[in-house]
Amino acid sequence: MNRIEKLQQRMKEQQVDTCLISDRDAMQYFIQKGFSCGERMVVLAVKQQGRSLLFLNELFPAEQLEGVELIRFKDTDDSVLLLKEHCTGPVIGIDKAWPSGFLLRLMQLLPECQFTDGAALSDQIRSIKSQQEQQKMRRASQLNDAVMQKVRTFLRPGVTEKQVAEQIREAFRQIAQSEPSFDTIVAFQENCADPHATPGSKVLEAGMSVIVDMGCRFEGYCSDMTRTFFLEENTMEEIYQIVLKANLAAIAAVGPHATFRDVDLAARRVIEEAGYGPYFIHRTGHGIGLSVHEPYDVSSVNDAPLQPGMCFSIEPGVYLPHQGGVRIEDLVLVTEDGCEVLNHDPKDQPVISWKQS
Amino acid sequence: MNRIEKLQQRMKEQQVDTCLISDRDAMQYFIQKGFSCGERMVVLAVKQQGRSLLFLNELFPAEQLEGVELIRFKDTDDSVLLLKEHCTGPVIGIDKAWPSGFLLRLMQLLPECQFTDGAALSDQIRSIKSQQEQQKMRRASQLNDAVMQKVRTFLRPGVTEKQVAEQIREAFRQIAQSEPSFDTIVAFQENCADPHATPGSKVLEAGMSVIVDMGCRFEGYCSDMTRTFFLEENTMEEIYQIVLKANLAAIAAVGPHATFRDVDLAARRVIEEAGYGPYFIHRTGHGIGLSVHEPYDVSSVNDAPLQPGMCFSIEPGVYLPHQGGVRIEDLVLVTEDGCEVLNHDPKDQPVISWKQS
Repeated sequence: MNRIEKLQQRMKEQQVDTCLISDRDAMQYFIQKGFSCGERMVVLAVKQQGRSLLFLNELFPAEQLEGVELIRFKDTDDSVLLLKEHCTGPVIGIDKAWPSGFLLRLMQLLPECQFTDGAALSDQIRSIKSQQEQQKMRRASQLNDAVMQKVRTFLRPGVTEKQVAEQIREAFRQIAQSEPSFDTIVAFQENCADPHATPGSKVLEAGMSVIVDMGCRFEGYCSDMTRTFFLEENTMEEIYQIVLKANLAAIAAVGPHATFRDVDLAARRVIEEAGYGPYFIHRTGHGIGLSVHEPYDVSSVNDAPLQPGMCFSIEPGVYLPHQGGVRIEDLVLVTEDGCEVLNHDPKDQPVISWKQS
Repeated sequence: MNRIEKLQQRMKEQQVDTCLISDRDAMQYFIQKGFSCGERMVVLAVKQQGRSLLFLNELFPAEQLEGVELIRFKDTDDSVLLLKEHCTGPVIGIDKAWPSGFLLRLMQLLPECQFTDGAALSDQIRSIKSQQEQQKMRRASQLNDAVMQKVRTFLRPGVTEKQVAEQIREAFRQIAQSEPSFDTIVAFQENCADPHATPGSKVLEAGMSVIVDMGCRFEGYCSDMTRTFFLEENTMEEIYQIVLKANLAAIAAVGPHATFRDVDLAARRVIEEAGYGPYFIHRTGHGIGLSVHEPYDVSSVNDAPLQPGMCFSIEPGVYLPHQGGVRIEDLVLVTEDGCEVLNHDPKDQPVISWKQS
């Protein structure tokens, strides 16, 4: 059963007549080709039976895709009206990422139809990685490990966050023939307190802490890893050990008989017991695959069971406002009897002593 | 009257009770600060009266914003439920870019409310640039002109499309202290047939044609310009003259008494009369400002009248499948009695003779 057929089976089970997919990565997953058309509509319409339809502005070149009928339109055409003519109701599943402007128009054109969030239909299929996908995830993380090894040599007094981020981009190009899979985070000292810090002009000095959060792609599949470093000694080293313990506790909790909540709580308990609970301000992790962030969240409010083939991040962190932060992130793959950690970059040597190198 | 007050006035006129804004650039426009939170919800809720509310995950740092009440939530909170509690009905205007997953959930929570596309409320306000915004648009295009001047020196036999795109990125950093405002298009010879070509490994040779479509930002405001070049002689030169004539005819048609359709047709007529109508496969242009593409389209199906302060692109093109293409793009600003062309890079010298330089 191919991926589209799996989706069609779920659609039958849940009585969804047409499923509209607009997310580039979801399209890539289902028909091996993704399109991003900016403000122009692009939709893959999957029905319970028969060929799927791809609605694509004629401005965007596309070859014939197996099992997909290509429906072309021009800038001057009413693309939503065209889509409406091909929708089979009464229940239409909508990609959660589809811009609302299109949805509101389609609802007006099909007032008798029922529109539902179609995410649940495809998310679960995508969340279980096949053997081939697992191999690609492994390779993407190996490449990320190789670049993180080099990052240690970039961290010298005098460099700025931006310069390190640029060196990382260059290293990904050379080592992985890949662009970053998301905007690389490089943060020094107090900037580490922002989990989504943007690299700026702050200059690295001896004694500072550093967070590097980065990833690349291998055949479309993403890696994502965070390491925290210290240039010689730093007052955050004690917190580092707590976060490391949380990272390891969460990894130890991963297995096919646990839930996402169990994994989150394993990390959270360590940090709470050390007195830093209020400073661990995000979920423990997120699903990953063709998208850097995809379902499901490793969160205390997600009690879905883990299943072999699921892949997600384990990234506990502690953030002290205006002072600094520590985050340690690895990707894991759920196996039949536990988990495989996809990253092998060491976590026990956060201190970089550049004078010796 | 500030920008939020203008929006509130329109909301009263059109009887919209709450307006939900999620687009980063729209937020930047209305409250001078934009947020992108990936899959996490971020919404600015504007009501007909009183302070606006910004719903932002506590992971994202934010200072106090004037006239805005910040409503924080955590990863484990139900953000749409929180939003629902603050929505005033019965009519709720939705940002056309808001991901449908949030909208479908909000509709479930507020079954008695009416949801409408709120784009019309804010688009017209944003489309008329103030004097200060016009000055920023001018400056962004001056910087783009300066970089395009340098691009001519990058186009030498032996370079790849990717290398030229990288040199352009570097030039934007040096000259404009800016990253590209969109993915730079560099296409050689037959790749010019794709209006949205991605720079690849194709190598430039004498006799080839080149399309460069690029822009940068100045204080948030975007530039966007396309030039077509020929490395020595090229069979597309005749088509170049037709496209240039179309570009100039469209510019001549811009003024406060014309419609967007008039401008589109002025360009289209030139290309159709030359026999290339079927190969001009896109609208003539798009609005621009804080976003690279914003309303309104310069299109044959848009009969809205032009108004002083509107800013958009004029970018006719001819694309011969598998052979090549020509596009010439400038930004224009509608004035009281015609228009101001924001780009000054010459269009009458497409041939680059590198041997002399």
